[in-house]
Amino acid sequence: MDVKKDWYSISEELHRRYRGKLEVVPKVPIRSFDDFSIWYTPGVAEPCRRIKAGGKELSLEYTFRWNLVAVVTDGTRVLGLGKIGPEAGLPVMEGKSLLFKYLGGVDAVPLALATTDADKFIEVVKLLEPSFGGINLEDIEQPKCFYILEKLRNALEIPVWHDDQQGTAVVNLAAVLNALKIVGKKLSDIRVAIIGAGASGIATAKYLMAAGVKAGNIYMVDTKGILHRDRADLRTGDFSVRWKKEMADITNAEGRVGGMAEAIKGTDVLIGLSTPGPGVIKPEWIRSMNDNPVVFPLANPVPEIWPWEAKEAGAKVVGTARSDFPNQINNSLAFPAVFRGALTVGARKITDGMCLAAAYAIAEFAEKEGISNDRILPTMDEVELYIYEAIKVAEKAVEEGVVRRKVSRSELETDIRELILRPKKYLKIAEENSLIK
Amino acid sequence: MDVKKDWYSISEELHRRYRGKLEVVPKVPIRSFDDFSIWYTPGVAEPCRRIKAGGKELSLEYTFRWNLVAVVTDGTRVLGLGKIGPEAGLPVMEGKSLLFKYLGGVDAVPLALATTDADKFIEVVKLLEPSFGGINLEDIEQPKCFYILEKLRNALEIPVWHDDQQGTAVVNLAAVLNALKIVGKKLSDIRVAIIGAGASGIATAKYLMAAGVKAGNIYMVDTKGILHRDRADLRTGDFSVRWKKEMADITNAEGRVGGMAEAIKGTDVLIGLSTPGPGVIKPEWIRSMNDNPVVFPLANPVPEIWPWEAKEAGAKVVGTARSDFPNQINNSLAFPAVFRGALTVGARKITDGMCLAAAYAIAEFAEKEGISNDRILPTMDEVELYIYEAIKVAEKAVEEGVVRRKVSRSELETDIRELILRPKKYLKIAEENSLIK
Repeated sequence: MDVKKDWYSISEELHRRYRGKLEVVPKVPIRSFDDFSIWYTPGVAEPCRRIKAGGKELSLEYTFRWNLVAVVTDGTRVLGLGKIGPEAGLPVMEGKSLLFKYLGGVDAVPLALATTDADKFIEVVKLLEPSFGGINLEDIEQPKCFYILEKLRNALEIPVWHDDQQGTAVVNLAAVLNALKIVGKKLSDIRVAIIGAGASGIATAKYLMAAGVKAGNIYMVDTKGILHRDRADLRTGDFSVRWKKEMADITNAEGRVGGMAEAIKGTDVLIGLSTPGPGVIKPEWIRSMNDNPVVFPLANPVPEIWPWEAKEAGAKVVGTARSDFPNQINNSLAFPAVFRGALTVGARKITDGMCLAAAYAIAEFAEKEGISNDRILPTMDEVELYIYEAIKVAEKAVEEGVVRRKVSRSELETDIRELILRPKKYLKIAEENSLIK
Repeated sequence: MDVKKDWYSISEELHRRYRGKLEVVPKVPIRSFDDFSIWYTPGVAEPCRRIKAGGKELSLEYTFRWNLVAVVTDGTRVLGLGKIGPEAGLPVMEGKSLLFKYLGGVDAVPLALATTDADKFIEVVKLLEPSFGGINLEDIEQPKCFYILEKLRNALEIPVWHDDQQGTAVVNLAAVLNALKIVGKKLSDIRVAIIGAGASGIATAKYLMAAGVKAGNIYMVDTKGILHRDRADLRTGDFSVRWKKEMADITNAEGRVGGMAEAIKGTDVLIGLSTPGPGVIKPEWIRSMNDNPVVFPLANPVPEIWPWEAKEAGAKVVGTARSDFPNQINNSLAFPAVFRGALTVGARKITDGMCLAAAYAIAEFAEKEGISNDRILPTMDEVELYIYEAIKVAEKAVEEGVVRRKVSRSELETDIRELILRPKKYLKIAEENSLIK
């Protein structure tokens, strides 16, 4: 049972037939050519003058910049395909932009940059800032991705987000929150093994800690074994291990050594963010976990262990990245709503607080609809999830004082609902009128 | 009689109400969430692999890149507003992008860069190349704009166009071609005075020469007087006067000296690309021109001389940049169709030959519909012009061997027609269904 080969050939054929997935259209009426005197010269000079006089932030009022996100990559770590370059990465970035619009009502354009140099990448994004309301970093290799995210979050006055870090961490935290409700355990009590100490593993560990898991109770494993304070390869002072060393310093209080088997033993939650399976995680390791273990083998396209094997070995709750098994743990539950919330209130940044608010919103929404072993998270087709989550993110942004726009609670809900429903309405109308065939 | 003040306040109000003029939408059907397995993971991996294996140019087949143009500025010379910065220039760039789509069926996004350094600007655009099918440079001060255009035209494998140079020159040439038909003169015989030796003046001179005007019969005037070989300020070897010096070396064969009066005397065509009037060009100078003079005072928002004054002074054909007088000489007649033609055949560049083809197409189209003193050019609402012109540009690109795509003549017309009509159809449907209010 592998990824259906059909998806590949259908996708290849349809991408070629449609020649891409997005287009740019007017959102203003044009009824006669006189209207161009409003939307272009001479009239457009007035919004320009207002921005010049009133400050550059007014460009978020007078242009579509406020709702526009750049999906930026350097093509160094695209899907499971690796370093395939900017042009080959472009179909993924365009797909991500499509998800931004369809799920979050966010206008997004793919930007694949012809450089693998981190500082050049940062320079380009900085120079592009005046045109965008937010930046979504995508599919950038590590450790560069940490460095780029950190620099850009500090340098820019618009939200910067690396989906492979924050996005994955938000949905992983949401999944853990609800899985613990099922097995009746508390965040402050659990031990967690994280297999894979890359971008998503480190971000997941951070958000688990921020939510209440004790740092010392987390065991992270990379290809060289469990992270611990004394690992020589992390004590070189080298730039490339800086982020991993931070984790080694605070996790694994008891100083466990060894590999996956040793890390997993006696834990309550196992999160796999490593290499495609099956057979990467062994059933006997799951049997060595505490009672009612939670197991999330999240490798793509094939989980580190098949869900049925994990269950046979005693896992109480199992989640994967796959849509064809129960409990898909999917970034698409996070980024569209996080940006929708942030952009609607003109947030200057996406804080960790806003990310946690998103995770709690996802978990709460699922709980209200009813959770069980086989349904700990909502699915991508639950429109109300995105509305609920975006409102929570926006409210958190207001609470943290990082917003530009004052929007009342009722306006917030109206605006967010309208923007999230718009693309669905658009597609329906476009298909009915043969604009899309 | 000035620009109606109303346009300014209406424009300010409507830009604020709509919060921009563009949005990004899907152009593919999404009927169930399974479709994301085609447009995103896992299916999208296949187009990525094909591009990786088959070469980066395949990204023009599998993504909307092929039809996507970046409208790039540094905000140093926006409209008549000057150096107002990238954020304040953004409403104009978004308006330009709107025109690209509405008139040419070209997807375009505004990119206003936070730098005034020419080399940084060039670097950013180079790094952005993998995401775009073409680059439209806009509202960049001179002499930087010459340098940037030259460098990028050489460096990139996609069309690069500076509308203030090529766009203006194309429509000016078209206007001269038809005006000469009215007054019964030949390109090879005429003398031309060009007031203003900036980006548009120099490009206009070049295209007039390319079309058959003798270089020596052109007199260009800047703020220091007529350009001629011996002008000391142009012989400094300085970078900033390089492009002007090239013109001084080949124009003005008889070595005229003086100012506007001396340049204009005895010419057949007068083109003003200088500072807003009225009163910049004097009626007595027009009286000193040859019989049946052609006068195009093109300054914005007020022509260098009012059209009625020019006519009283003997001008046979008068054209301005204004839509409220006859004979509007308007860049919007050129760039949408030039890019439509170029992108449809996957042109690697926009050659001067393609620009001349566009100018001749505009002139021919108008002539077929009937020309007169007060109608030398088509207007922006003549949809068939854009289709005709785009086909001519595409055919020229094929002839010059700069294209990637082989398209039959009948496909070419079908494709171009469909793409140019699509945004009009879209707007009608969007308004009928209250997507746009």
